[in-house]
Amino acid sequence: MFQVRTDLALEAREKFDEDNVEIKGVRLEEEQATPDIHISSVIIETENGAKAMGKPKGSYVTLEAPNMIDEDEGYHREISIQLSKVLKRLLPQKEDFTTLVVGLGNRAVTPDSLGPRVVDNLCITRHIIKEFGRYVIGDSCHKSVSSIVPGVMAQTGIESMEIVRGITKETNPDIIIAVDALAARSTRRLNRTIQITDTGINPGSGVGNHRHALNGESMGIPVIAVGIPTVVDAATIVIDTMNNLLEAMSQAEQLRRISNSYEKLDMMEKYELVHELLTPQLNTLFVTPKDVDEAVKRLSFTVSEGINLALQKNEEAHRY
Amino acid sequence: MFQVRTDLALEAREKFDEDNVEIKGVRLEEEQATPDIHISSVIIETENGAKAMGKPKGSYVTLEAPNMIDEDEGYHREISIQLSKVLKRLLPQKEDFTTLVVGLGNRAVTPDSLGPRVVDNLCITRHIIKEFGRYVIGDSCHKSVSSIVPGVMAQTGIESMEIVRGITKETNPDIIIAVDALAARSTRRLNRTIQITDTGINPGSGVGNHRHALNGESMGIPVIAVGIPTVVDAATIVIDTMNNLLEAMSQAEQLRRISNSYEKLDMMEKYELVHELLTPQLNTLFVTPKDVDEAVKRLSFTVSEGINLALQKNEEAHRY
Amino acid sequence: MFQVRTDLALEAREKFDEDNVEIKGVRLEEEQATPDIHISSVIIETENGAKAMGKPKGSYVTLEAPNMIDEDEGYHREISIQLSKVLKRLLPQKEDFTTLVVGLGNRAVTPDSLGPRVVDNLCITRHIIKEFGRYVIGDSCHKSVSSIVPGVMAQTGIESMEIVRGITKETNPDIIIAVDALAARSTRRLNRTIQITDTGINPGSGVGNHRHALNGESMGIPVIAVGIPTVVDAATIVIDTMNNLLEAMSQAEQLRRISNSYEKLDMMEKYELVHELLTPQLNTLFVTPKDVDEAVKRLSFTVSEGINLALQKNEEAHRY
Amino acid sequence: MFQVRTDLALEAREKFDEDNVEIKGVRLEEEQATPDIHISSVIIETENGAKAMGKPKGSYVTLEAPNMIDEDEGYHREISIQLSKVLKRLLPQKEDFTTLVVGLGNRAVTPDSLGPRVVDNLCITRHIIKEFGRYVIGDSCHKSVSSIVPGVMAQTGIESMEIVRGITKETNPDIIIAVDALAARSTRRLNRTIQITDTGINPGSGVGNHRHALNGESMGIPVIAVGIPTVVDAATIVIDTMNNLLEAMSQAEQLRRISNSYEKLDMMEKYELVHELLTPQLNTLFVTPKDVDEAVKRLSFTVSEGINLALQKNEEAHRY
Repeated sequence: MFQVRTDLALEAREKFDEDNVEIKGVRLEEEQATPDIHISSVIIETENGAKAMGKPKGSYVTLEAPNMIDEDEGYHREISIQLSKVLKRLLPQKEDFTTLVVGLGNRAVTPDSLGPRVVDNLCITRHIIKEFGRYVIGDSCHKSVSSIVPGVMAQTGIESMEIVRGITKETNPDIIIAVDALAARSTRRLNRTIQITDTGINPGSGVGNHRHALNGESMGIPVIAVGIPTVVDAATIVIDTMNNLLEAMSQAEQLRRISNSYEKLDMMEKYELVHELLTPQLNTLFVTPKDVDEAVKRLSFTVSEGINLALQKNEEAHRY
Repeated sequence: MFQVRTDLALEAREKFDEDNVEIKGVRLEEEQATPDIHISSVIIETENGAKAMGKPKGSYVTLEAPNMIDEDEGYHREISIQLSKVLKRLLPQKEDFTTLVVGLGNRAVTPDSLGPRVVDNLCITRHIIKEFGRYVIGDSCHKSVSSIVPGVMAQTGIESMEIVRGITKETNPDIIIAVDALAARSTRRLNRTIQITDTGINPGSGVGNHRHALNGESMGIPVIAVGIPTVVDAATIVIDTMNNLLEAMSQAEQLRRISNSYEKLDMMEKYELVHELLTPQLNTLFVTPKDVDEAVKRLSFTVSEGINLALQKNEEAHRY
Repeated sequence: MFQVRTDLALEAREKFDEDNVEIKGVRLEEEQATPDIHISSVIIETENGAKAMGKPKGSYVTLEAPNMIDEDEGYHREISIQLSKVLKRLLPQKEDFTTLVVGLGNRAVTPDSLGPRVVDNLCITRHIIKEFGRYVIGDSCHKSVSSIVPGVMAQTGIESMEIVRGITKETNPDIIIAVDALAARSTRRLNRTIQITDTGINPGSGVGNHRHALNGESMGIPVIAVGIPTVVDAATIVIDTMNNLLEAMSQAEQLRRISNSYEKLDMMEKYELVHELLTPQLNTLFVTPKDVDEAVKRLSFTVSEGINLALQKNEEAHRY
Repeated sequence: MFQVRTDLALEAREKFDEDNVEIKGVRLEEEQATPDIHISSVIIETENGAKAMGKPKGSYVTLEAPNMIDEDEGYHREISIQLSKVLKRLLPQKEDFTTLVVGLGNRAVTPDSLGPRVVDNLCITRHIIKEFGRYVIGDSCHKSVSSIVPGVMAQTGIESMEIVRGITKETNPDIIIAVDALAARSTRRLNRTIQITDTGINPGSGVGNHRHALNGESMGIPVIAVGIPTVVDAATIVIDTMNNLLEAMSQAEQLRRISNSYEKLDMMEKYELVHELLTPQLNTLFVTPKDVDEAVKRLSFTVSEGINLALQKNEEAHRY
């Protein structure tokens, strides 16, 4: 079955709505967490559902906040708090556990730098707890947290997955939280959506397209992935415009005939047609907003605060 | 007259070739500088030519080297040498003069960071010459060179042009060389082309769209601009694909009818149609290659070496 | 008169206490702003006082907070609030004025990067107000604020003072706030003290030793300087140890004789002796803590928040 | 036995020369590689020699070039060539082997950023060879090279050694080259000396003081360490000045008596005295030149080029 390229389960599911198709084994739950924050959960319950969605079985929680990138409001602590609540539901339900946070992506390419930047602002405690015990660091940071930025294969020659697996075997965390920039289907979702999933990072995910899975199976421990879409595939903006064009055509008298036969193509045929027609270079291109630097800076704070709040006790500390 | 969005005069001119239109007042000269480096000069000689091209009167030299971003060859010293030769033709024809190099763009957005990165590797001498005289620094760096990275308006609140004019009045250079990332029409030209012009930076140029001119008129001294296209406008890849689509359609039996009426639109109508149909967000998007970090790193060395060679004597020093 | 190298007026004054000398024309005021924050004001009232202190006439307010660099407390909003109160006393006493914030120092040398990093987190409004008027940006940011990071002379070939003067003439702000890393006399004060002065930046100040004044006289408008000591002069740690040594000697029987004649040297003679004996390289060295990266990161947030609060209305926004 | 804090075996040995002590089991070889480059090899042959030197058995080759940081000469390719020759003697003597280069240190603290910056400019091939075979990448890069920048414990919560061991087990390189910034005894050696050793990185080494060994024993494969001193311990500049002082004293009539008894202390007693007298903060301070940013930038190119030349065939490519 054909899949429009998106890392967001919510978008993968929406496509079925558009096509008026019901998918068995996929459940959707919605919740208005605050007046400004909408939370949707796509739960893929069966292998058939996974096949239809093109994504592994598991929970995909999407936090949408239209004002997430408004500048004059600071880093949006209320989103961090909602993120921490979602994370807490997925984290081990016990008093104490150890976490390795992985910042995936390329620090040198702005829209792909979300993961490394999130790691920069985490409350890291493993080395302190290992040396002094957990009571020395006070109430606000008492769980063991470590982190790694594996870098990109062009710089290291090593798959991120290999690096993380090596470190996981050496340091034995109970759980991994992997943070990554995602590709969305719709430009409307760029920098406005956080996806949290218990399925980890799977082939085809992320801006940089890490080829090997970083998930429970490959790591031997649970992997939670947190992602924000910061780019869209170049092909998707072409097909979006094409559809707009055809809609306009069907309304304009003189263009009506054009659209008739094209309209008969289904979504998949259209997408494949576009992909075929894209110049070869286009496959290595991405589309991103011009103010992506400010957006990624702000969003990385929102996400690191969410993780800090989920892993540590104190909701009061103001980090920067 | 309608203009496809491109900062490259060569591309602006090519459009007329496509349309089989001759443009008066615009001259083209071509030269194969080395087996791998092709140099084209578009010289806009009259106001009519300027109007037709949508660019001010002056010389636009384009250096094309298909292998400019091949990695295993280092930073391409042979391109730096050709760039320095082109620059020397535009620089003052006297033994001694003072230069201010301006690195335009946003260091935090990878494809827009070319200008700031070029400045990082220049041979800066003004302060040494001012304090010790020019004989102290040896043969390799004897002309006075200063530089500034004005930053972006979102960070400074000030137009780049205002910053550069203030510094120009204060330090009185004889000439400005402004380096900037450009937007191309064709993805094929990304990171493979250097444009050198004696017309400076004009409204609409550059990735970040500096609104005010940084040219001879606004600065009171000659301004040479050096640019490399690192992004394309999101609209251009849509229209490229659309054209490919229609060409394919005209060949496919079942799609023939679609293309008939659309084909009758001329280039301008197509472009305006596409722009109208693009979602509003698209106007703030750009398209760039995934390996833009490596490309900009390498290209910035090529350009700074070219400027160093043009302004200083010694062609033998290996900088990094 | 001999001056121990320090950018802190408080330390310059303390020396006289040590020597039991009273200084006419220099007034000291002290205030415990909060249980954790102590504020001292050194006011140099006469030319004689200025001569004795080696610093221009004016107010030097010092904000001391021993826990300023404690990590687990975030960025210390309470210090930002006190800083904003001190700044408000020195800023124009009218509803509306325009400010240029200058981030002095070298972004590439960690302890010297305070100024550039402070600028990164300011609420910049000049371009928005200029284009849309001040009502568009809401209550929290209504005064016009612009900024510049002039860079260092080795990179630009231009004195910071020249760059700032050029931009000041071009953009006409009402007041300049210059932020810079300072050199302290005592390692105990490193990263724990903020000095705010209405005298600007004067020769010999700062880590990088900007040679020309950036003050009311050179700029034509008031200049407030905000600084934090992040390094000490290599010579000062030598003389500190030397004094400890001699004290220890005077107590140890077998070393008593050594100290006798050395002790007779006064402070100035000792310092000059040490400076003479330092190897020539030492003059270009500085001493800084190993965790200076974390300290500068945190302190730069504290200072930019203080400036944001002083220049804008809303004390509630959480920036990052 | 007392050890002056230095990571350079050459300096550790020089101390014995000063004291006119012969050390058994330690051999010194000297060679003038070029008119400007002096190479010394300290070979510690026995356990007694290791104990006397305070360093493990093995070869410590020191490359000294007084002009290593002269700016106008570029990045000193001739030093890279000598470095590659020394490395080749220590690398496996076979046609093909795989190497993991480790960039130790803190990218955010300028003098400690040497290791990460060296890695930025390496020719990384492992992923290409793994996917396409070694013949695809041409003559210039045919050996498998991967790299990792483990970061610092304050950011990761994990020892560098643990990270490297995990990745080593996962990717099975034949040899590790670890690059690190070192602490020297003498300010004269800062940024002018490269030490290459087959003993790896051992406790107490490096600017950041990695506590656990990264050597053949802990990794299970040979570890070559390449280091450049970029800082000196704060205590060493105190004792240097102290010695200068006492020498001056012994010559000055009025100070003669002071020095008599102090002079009787031997080197170790003096150093311990100074360490005791240093204020507690001093233990966390380091001393570094003001232009350390330019020096580290240039030196990191010299070292990465040396490693590139040692691991790949072609000496002709100009990298940047």
